[in-house]
Amino acid sequence: MTRPRKAELLAIGDELLNGLRANSHLTWLGGLLADKNLPLHWGTEIRDEASEMVPAFHQALDRADLVVVTGGLGPTSDDFTVDCMAEALGREVTYSKKVEEKIEAFFRARGREPTQNNYKQCHILSGADIIPNPNGTAPGQWIEENGHVIVLLPGPPMEMQPMVQNDLLPRLEERGWVSDKEGPVRFRTIGLGESKVAELLHPLFEKTADKVRVAYCAHLGYVDVRLHPVEGGLTEAQIRQLGERCREALGESFLGYGTPDLSCLILRQLRSLGKSLAVAESCTGGLLASRFTDVAGASKVFTGGLVCYRNEVKENILGVPGSLIEQHGAVSAECAVAMATAAAEMMEADYALAITGYAGPEGGRDTPAGTVYLGYHSPAGVWSRKAVLPGNRTAVKERAVTAALDFLRRKIEKYKMVDLLESLRC
Amino acid sequence: MTRPRKAELLAIGDELLNGLRANSHLTWLGGLLADKNLPLHWGTEIRDEASEMVPAFHQALDRADLVVVTGGLGPTSDDFTVDCMAEALGREVTYSKKVEEKIEAFFRARGREPTQNNYKQCHILSGADIIPNPNGTAPGQWIEENGHVIVLLPGPPMEMQPMVQNDLLPRLEERGWVSDKEGPVRFRTIGLGESKVAELLHPLFEKTADKVRVAYCAHLGYVDVRLHPVEGGLTEAQIRQLGERCREALGESFLGYGTPDLSCLILRQLRSLGKSLAVAESCTGGLLASRFTDVAGASKVFTGGLVCYRNEVKENILGVPGSLIEQHGAVSAECAVAMATAAAEMMEADYALAITGYAGPEGGRDTPAGTVYLGYHSPAGVWSRKAVLPGNRTAVKERAVTAALDFLRRKIEKYKMVDLLESLRC
Repeated sequence: MTRPRKAELLAIGDELLNGLRANSHLTWLGGLLADKNLPLHWGTEIRDEASEMVPAFHQALDRADLVVVTGGLGPTSDDFTVDCMAEALGREVTYSKKVEEKIEAFFRARGREPTQNNYKQCHILSGADIIPNPNGTAPGQWIEENGHVIVLLPGPPMEMQPMVQNDLLPRLEERGWVSDKEGPVRFRTIGLGESKVAELLHPLFEKTADKVRVAYCAHLGYVDVRLHPVEGGLTEAQIRQLGERCREALGESFLGYGTPDLSCLILRQLRSLGKSLAVAESCTGGLLASRFTDVAGASKVFTGGLVCYRNEVKENILGVPGSLIEQHGAVSAECAVAMATAAAEMMEADYALAITGYAGPEGGRDTPAGTVYLGYHSPAGVWSRKAVLPGNRTAVKERAVTAALDFLRRKIEKYKMVDLLESLRC
Repeated sequence: MTRPRKAELLAIGDELLNGLRANSHLTWLGGLLADKNLPLHWGTEIRDEASEMVPAFHQALDRADLVVVTGGLGPTSDDFTVDCMAEALGREVTYSKKVEEKIEAFFRARGREPTQNNYKQCHILSGADIIPNPNGTAPGQWIEENGHVIVLLPGPPMEMQPMVQNDLLPRLEERGWVSDKEGPVRFRTIGLGESKVAELLHPLFEKTADKVRVAYCAHLGYVDVRLHPVEGGLTEAQIRQLGERCREALGESFLGYGTPDLSCLILRQLRSLGKSLAVAESCTGGLLASRFTDVAGASKVFTGGLVCYRNEVKENILGVPGSLIEQHGAVSAECAVAMATAAAEMMEADYALAITGYAGPEGGRDTPAGTVYLGYHSPAGVWSRKAVLPGNRTAVKERAVTAALDFLRRKIEKYKMVDLLESLRC
C-alpha cells in the first residue's frame, strides 16, 4: 500500500457563505472519496473574491496532494477561479480554440448563440488537460504540478458530478490514488441511539483500539458507523471480519452495509413476496407515502396513501368508526390499527402501515407532542407500536416515518412465512 | 458606520468531511450573520486531528475579527478544540469548578451520574467567558484577544443554535458588530429561471453597478435575490427603494421579502378567507400534502390528501371516471382537473389541488419524464396547467410541488373575489 494521499476541497461562491445554498459538494465528494480510500482532509468555502482565493489556493497546495476547486468557472464578472489559480501556480492563461468549438456546438445544439461572456470560458491554464462537460459550457481542468494534482470543476452539481464519475475518478485510479479495495467498512443501524450503538459495539473494539478508526454519525432515527483503516493497523480482511461481528452484535438493528435506503429495502422485499402496500397517515401528512414514491418503480408494490389529517376524513373516507375515535381518541393504538386495516381494504393492498400522532408544537390533553402510534396490517394479523419522539415538528415527522418503516421491516421479516401461508389459505 | 467586521466559521468533525453529515452550521450561521451585516468571509471544515486544528486556528485568527469554532468540545478522546485553541493562542487551560457544578446539576436533573469523561468538559481557556449551554454538558466559550473575538460552541445544532441566539448575538450587538439595520435586502422569486430573473432586473442595476452587490441563488423552482450594501455605495434606504423597484418589475413572480415559505403563505391566505383545502397527487406521491402539513396549525385549513398512485385508486376511491382515463390518459389536463374536483368533494374542501405526471426515470409513450399536469378546483371554477420539468426523480417531485403551489397561489390571488361571491351565492 502506497502512502495514503490527502485530498482537499475548495468550494467557491458567496451563496455558500451567506446561507443561500448548502455546500452539497462537500458531502457528495467527501462520501465518494472516503469510500475510495482518498478521504478529504480539509474543506474550505471562499467568496467570489480574488483577494481571498489566491491565498486559499496557496494554503491548499501546501497541505494536499489533490486539490479540487468547484465553482467560479462561470461566464460572468464574478468568476475568478482560472485567473486566481494561474496566479497561485505562476502559470499563464491561454485561449483554447478546442473549448471554443465545444461551446459553440453546445449552443448550436440548443438553437442558440453564445453571448460574448461565454467566450471567457475558453480560458485555460497553460498545460491543463481539459475535462469535458457534457451538461454545460464551463470545461473542467486537470493540472499537475510537482506531484500535486489540481482539478477545477464547475459549481452546478448536475455538471460537476458526472465529470467526477466519468473523468476524475478514472484518472485518479490510473495514478493509484483511489481504490475500491482499501476503503472503510460502513454500515447503517436503525432504532437505537448513538450512545446505545456505541455501548453495544464497544466490547468488540477494545482489543483493536488504535488499529482501526471508528466513526459514528447519528441521523434522525438511524446511526451510521464507519470502520476506517489506519496505517499499521488491521488489514482489510480483518476490518471486514470486525464488521461481521458488529452485524451479529446488532442483530435486527443492523440495517445493512453501506447506506441502504429503508423504503427501498421494504419495496424490494414486498416485490419479491409478490405483495402490495398502502399507507394512511395523520401527523406525518404525506411524508411516509412520499418516501415510498421516491423509489423508482414503486408503483409495482405501492398502491396509494391517504392523508387523513382531519378526523372527518378518517371516519368518512377511511371508515374508521366514530365510536372508536370517541372512545380511544384519534391518537391511539386502536385508531392506528383501524387506519391500517381500512387503508388495506380501501386501496386493495396486502399490507398497510398507518401513523397517527402529535407532530407538535402542540400535543394532546395528556399526551406530549412527539407521541405517535404506528399501526400495521398484514395477512398474518395486526400490530401497533407507540413511540415518543424528540425534536421539532419536522424532526418528529421525519423520525415517525423512519420508526414506521423500521416497524414494517421487522414485522415483514418476522412473519413473512405466516403471511405466505395465510395468503395461500385464501 | 464602523469598519465592517469579518467573521469566519471553523467546523470540526470527521463526519463533515467523509460524507456522513452536511455542515448545517455553515448555512444556518451564514444566513443569520449575513442578515445582521456581519457576513461569513470564509468557512473551513477540519477533521478531529490536533495537528490540523492548530494551523487552521492560526490562519483564521490572521484573517478574521470573529472566529467561530463548532464541535470538538465533547467528552471523548477525539475532542481537541479547547487544547488546540489554547496552543494557538498561547493560553493555559484551567479547570472550572463552576462548569463542574453545572454538569453535575445537568445529570442530577436527569437522574443520572456524570461519567469520568464528562469532567473533561470542565476545561476552559484561561480568561474565557462561559456561554451557558442549557441543552447539553459542553459549555461555550467567549475569548477576546487583541481585538479579535474567538467563540467555541458545541457541535449539535440543538445545543449550538440557542447559544448563538441567546448569548452570542446579544454580545456582538453590544460591541456594535452586528446590526439589523444595515443588512442586505433579500427577496424570493418564483416561476422564473435564474437567467430570466437576472434579465428582468438587469436594467434596474445598470446605474448602480459597484454601488450594490447583487447575488442570485437558484433553488428547485424558485430564485433568491440579495442586494448587499458595499462600502461607499447605496444607503440602506436606497437599497430598500431598489428592492421595491425589483418587486414592481417582477410582478406576480415576486413572492415576498426574506425567504417566505409558499405553503405557509397559501395556508395563511386560505385561513383569512375562511376556506379549506384538499389535495390529490399521483407522481409527487405525498410530497405536496407533506409540504402543507409541515406548517404548524395546518389542520385549520388542510383537510387531507389522497396519494392515488395507481389508476385503480384514482377510479375506485377518488371516482375519476375510467372512461376519462381511457380517453385522455392518467397523465392529462382532464385527469388533473377531475382529480382536483373529486378530492374537493371527497374531503369536503372548498379548494383542491391535484398533480399527475411522470416523475421519471420513465415517461409515457409519447410523453417525456418530467411532464406533469396540475389541476385546480375552486368555488370560481376549475383550471389546469402543464409543465415539463428537468432533473431526476426527486428533483421533478420537488419542482412539481413548487409549480403546483405557485399555480394555486396565483389562482387564489386572481379569483379570490369571484370565489367569495360564489360562496355567498350557495
